[in-house]
Amino acid sequence: MAKKVSMAGIFPPIPTPFDAAEELDLKALAGNIEKWNKTPIHGYVVLGSNGEMTYLSEAEKLQVYETARKHIPSSKLMMAGCGCESTHSSIQLTKKAAAIGADVALFISPCYYKSKMDNAALADYYTRLADASPIPVSVYNFPANTGLDMSAELIVKLSQHPNIAGVKDSGGNVVKMGEIIKNVRPDFQVLAGSAGFLYPALCLGAVGGVLALANIAPQQCCDILAFAKAGKHEDARQIQLRMIAPNTAVTAGFGVAGLKAAMDMLGMVGGKPRSPMQPLGEEQKAKLKGILKEAGIL
Amino acid sequence: MAKKVSMAGIFPPIPTPFDAAEELDLKALAGNIEKWNKTPIHGYVVLGSNGEMTYLSEAEKLQVYETARKHIPSSKLMMAGCGCESTHSSIQLTKKAAAIGADVALFISPCYYKSKMDNAALADYYTRLADASPIPVSVYNFPANTGLDMSAELIVKLSQHPNIAGVKDSGGNVVKMGEIIKNVRPDFQVLAGSAGFLYPALCLGAVGGVLALANIAPQQCCDILAFAKAGKHEDARQIQLRMIAPNTAVTAGFGVAGLKAAMDMLGMVGGKPRSPMQPLGEEQKAKLKGILKEAGIL
Amino acid sequence: MAKKVSMAGIFPPIPTPFDAAEELDLKALAGNIEKWNKTPIHGYVVLGSNGEMTYLSEAEKLQVYETARKHIPSSKLMMAGCGCESTHSSIQLTKKAAAIGADVALFISPCYYKSKMDNAALADYYTRLADASPIPVSVYNFPANTGLDMSAELIVKLSQHPNIAGVKDSGGNVVKMGEIIKNVRPDFQVLAGSAGFLYPALCLGAVGGVLALANIAPQQCCDILAFAKAGKHEDARQIQLRMIAPNTAVTAGFGVAGLKAAMDMLGMVGGKPRSPMQPLGEEQKAKLKGILKEAGIL
Amino acid sequence: MAKKVSMAGIFPPIPTPFDAAEELDLKALAGNIEKWNKTPIHGYVVLGSNGEMTYLSEAEKLQVYETARKHIPSSKLMMAGCGCESTHSSIQLTKKAAAIGADVALFISPCYYKSKMDNAALADYYTRLADASPIPVSVYNFPANTGLDMSAELIVKLSQHPNIAGVKDSGGNVVKMGEIIKNVRPDFQVLAGSAGFLYPALCLGAVGGVLALANIAPQQCCDILAFAKAGKHEDARQIQLRMIAPNTAVTAGFGVAGLKAAMDMLGMVGGKPRSPMQPLGEEQKAKLKGILKEAGIL
Repeated sequence: MAKKVSMAGIFPPIPTPFDAAEELDLKALAGNIEKWNKTPIHGYVVLGSNGEMTYLSEAEKLQVYETARKHIPSSKLMMAGCGCESTHSSIQLTKKAAAIGADVALFISPCYYKSKMDNAALADYYTRLADASPIPVSVYNFPANTGLDMSAELIVKLSQHPNIAGVKDSGGNVVKMGEIIKNVRPDFQVLAGSAGFLYPALCLGAVGGVLALANIAPQQCCDILAFAKAGKHEDARQIQLRMIAPNTAVTAGFGVAGLKAAMDMLGMVGGKPRSPMQPLGEEQKAKLKGILKEAGIL
Repeated sequence: MAKKVSMAGIFPPIPTPFDAAEELDLKALAGNIEKWNKTPIHGYVVLGSNGEMTYLSEAEKLQVYETARKHIPSSKLMMAGCGCESTHSSIQLTKKAAAIGADVALFISPCYYKSKMDNAALADYYTRLADASPIPVSVYNFPANTGLDMSAELIVKLSQHPNIAGVKDSGGNVVKMGEIIKNVRPDFQVLAGSAGFLYPALCLGAVGGVLALANIAPQQCCDILAFAKAGKHEDARQIQLRMIAPNTAVTAGFGVAGLKAAMDMLGMVGGKPRSPMQPLGEEQKAKLKGILKEAGIL
Repeated sequence: MAKKVSMAGIFPPIPTPFDAAEELDLKALAGNIEKWNKTPIHGYVVLGSNGEMTYLSEAEKLQVYETARKHIPSSKLMMAGCGCESTHSSIQLTKKAAAIGADVALFISPCYYKSKMDNAALADYYTRLADASPIPVSVYNFPANTGLDMSAELIVKLSQHPNIAGVKDSGGNVVKMGEIIKNVRPDFQVLAGSAGFLYPALCLGAVGGVLALANIAPQQCCDILAFAKAGKHEDARQIQLRMIAPNTAVTAGFGVAGLKAAMDMLGMVGGKPRSPMQPLGEEQKAKLKGILKEAGIL
Repeated sequence: MAKKVSMAGIFPPIPTPFDAAEELDLKALAGNIEKWNKTPIHGYVVLGSNGEMTYLSEAEKLQVYETARKHIPSSKLMMAGCGCESTHSSIQLTKKAAAIGADVALFISPCYYKSKMDNAALADYYTRLADASPIPVSVYNFPANTGLDMSAELIVKLSQHPNIAGVKDSGGNVVKMGEIIKNVRPDFQVLAGSAGFLYPALCLGAVGGVLALANIAPQQCCDILAFAKAGKHEDARQIQLRMIAPNTAVTAGFGVAGLKAAMDMLGMVGGKPRSPMQPLGEEQKAKLKGILKEAGIL
């Protein structure tokens, strides 16, 4: 069984840079990580949805894990997105990620056969992964992309497995989040999956967040967490309200392409997403720039 | 223009009792109100969704308003559900409710022609109502029943009208709630529409709630508000987590029939809903009783 | 028990004209009916969704029924939309419609408490109505407006009631329609609820349609039915393909406002819908006119 | 540019057999194909949704293509499912499938980033594929699995590309299907994506179908097509009505696991799907058997 791991803190799910020919740009990836290393974030999610994981071949995924691990200091956690559609493929990938040095394996729920991914199928999936994984496992619920919303009942059940450390919930349903927090085993860790509801999630008992916004506003995201923990609720609230618009812009609004464009604006390497995801047009970029400026990020 | 009104506080949207022949039982209604008057709630919503408003004829609605106003002391606010599908009908009903003494008129968004109820149509609706209403108006967003989720943009726009005092939002989307709170005019009042997310809503800046649960757990709902205002966040959080299960039971779970059954268990008059809404079966009642007991309500 | 009724044929669900003050214009209604009487349609639906039924008071509904019956010859069927949210209100209205001379009562499924309108609740609703109604009853499934899609299983069960003559299905799910047709009692009548799928519905065994398009293209709708019955499938198919665009324009596209604008263009009285439904803008009218011309309706 | 191809006819999307260790069972695949070769089907879809394509590694996909091509006679068309999430991966796979001898490449719409897969992104995707593919391309719309419903407008636009031969539409929206058929270039081929609506689709102008049911009822599916083409509409209709229940059982009802169980019952090799897809329980198998017997398939 894997050792205990703390996922408390703020984690950017980092984008994967590509060059003009849409091939991996690992040098740019390394350069971005070196910059984030200087911020107060607690670790990284490598190959989450913002990393365009579904657009990479298995060989490319391994290259990204390796580059990331080489540049992420051991003081910061490396969570690796290892979810595939089949249990077999997910287990294979997890073992490789663990061998490369990932600290936690994060699994999005399989979703192509969504009408058949009921509680029984998903419990089977996550239990087999947790049994097989050499490193702690985190569940990852992202209904907007998967078209599947994992039930509180299922997550509470999964929390009984000693190798499932927590859940990243991007659904934003705080009622469900409260239900989960009340009923999981005491050291099961709940992470907000989007900065749009980070502060209310922390109020309910979440221990941190995996936040696209943390790629471009790491200090503000860490401040919300620090203020909430210190009982400075009005300070946390003020930043939270200011972060909603830029967060929406780089998530539901303009998506991965928007996050990458924002990184370009901030002097990091974002670049274009892989096709068929389309880059932002000039008008969209101007709108994004305005939002980032108003929020004090740019 | 109507005078200012404070909607800060906890408001139960009270059920409408019927007798065995499914006719109005106004005596039971009066008796229930006398009991709630002894609790710390700040007022009432009369003929909201839990009042089965869509099941009553216009004449019946007026009888309910009258009975309620007679038994609600002037120290407690009476918000009257006055929403119909057409602007014309809604205005007529509002004038009558105001004449009877309602303090605020609450309007669910019209929804039968949902694909045509865009921002322009809804802005037209609420603006005409606010212009015509002798009493302050509150918007009421309840996507689960209407199939329509009013946008933050629309609510922010409506907040500019001096006779629109606030919004009851039952959607539970705290990101949107934050966006609304950040952008409305300063004295526009946001109310949580369900106890499942009362505490996180208050953290973000909501001033209270219209809560089905407040019919059966008024003290606990008022405590969450009082603790949050006093900065006793851990106390508020603990009650919030405990209230999620009973709240779900009397809202999304068992619905109005469940709320009425819970009232019967607590010595008030709930009774059966009107047909075609079905009463709870024995097995459902037993389950509900267990949930209420575990939450310390029964 | 009510006598047998044939609903085979084409029925326009007629709009309700209003004057500039948004009051009923019964004279215009009568004039429209006189024009439709000269077409080959088999009857009328009075106060369906296109009649803005939810925007009318009960007194107004009775006026519309009376005017319609006075101008609809006994050779043409009058189906009256009598559905309200509660069983009690629906029964009251049905008795009045029957007294006025309606031949069939059509009931949309109650939908405000949609999560509670399961098969048991809806079976209870329709069974009580069918028991109480002095005239034959038709079920009316319109998921786009109600947010509820009645199951084939439920409709098959309801078809066993001797006073439920048929169903108008606007969902457009031909798989479900086939399942219904295969399993209902032999003389239960299935009507297509939209001209967009009239011909495929007839191929499967439907006996006609209640079609918004029949208000403005009665001949073409009747031709599709006549050709299909005569085995002239290619002729039916050609008209069907041509009618899709204009049908979408006056249903899902521009809605009731579009249907009313089209009637104005054809020399009948459409006028504006009641608020909050918005009338078409000039650009929309021009687009609609183009569609009607291309389809040979204008 | 690729040569013209006729997709008129009935095509089973064949399942992929696995052994007890969930590894590919290519011998069983070959045996199944030899049996289907004796039926009147016009060809095969290899690695569609029923082939569990998303559960296979790239190496496994190539093995399946190779085995299939070896056993499919040149007189029957081999359509290969080649869709991946990224354009780059899809093109690579298509070139390999073409080299192995596939006649047509079928592409499901990429869907993980569904909110960004708008008409522009999907047009870019399919156009690049059609430009790069050495064999004709077919679009594949399957909203139930992808959570994306491609618009008629987009499909009409794509039909202008000379290397896009047609579309398999599993959505079952016959209004949209009619709109597509009316507006695409004359030789663009529309295939029904499910036997539940095969006959109405043919009435509207579809030329055949890719049908899970054709795996277990190839004769009946071919009969519907033959009768419809011969103008024997009542015969086609009768079989269609009888095939709805078994079709639902092996698609929306019990899914791929149900299809595989049905094949086992019919003396072919179905077996279990890969995890996390769950096999049928005994009760489900009994229910399935009853449905197949009643429909005359077993």
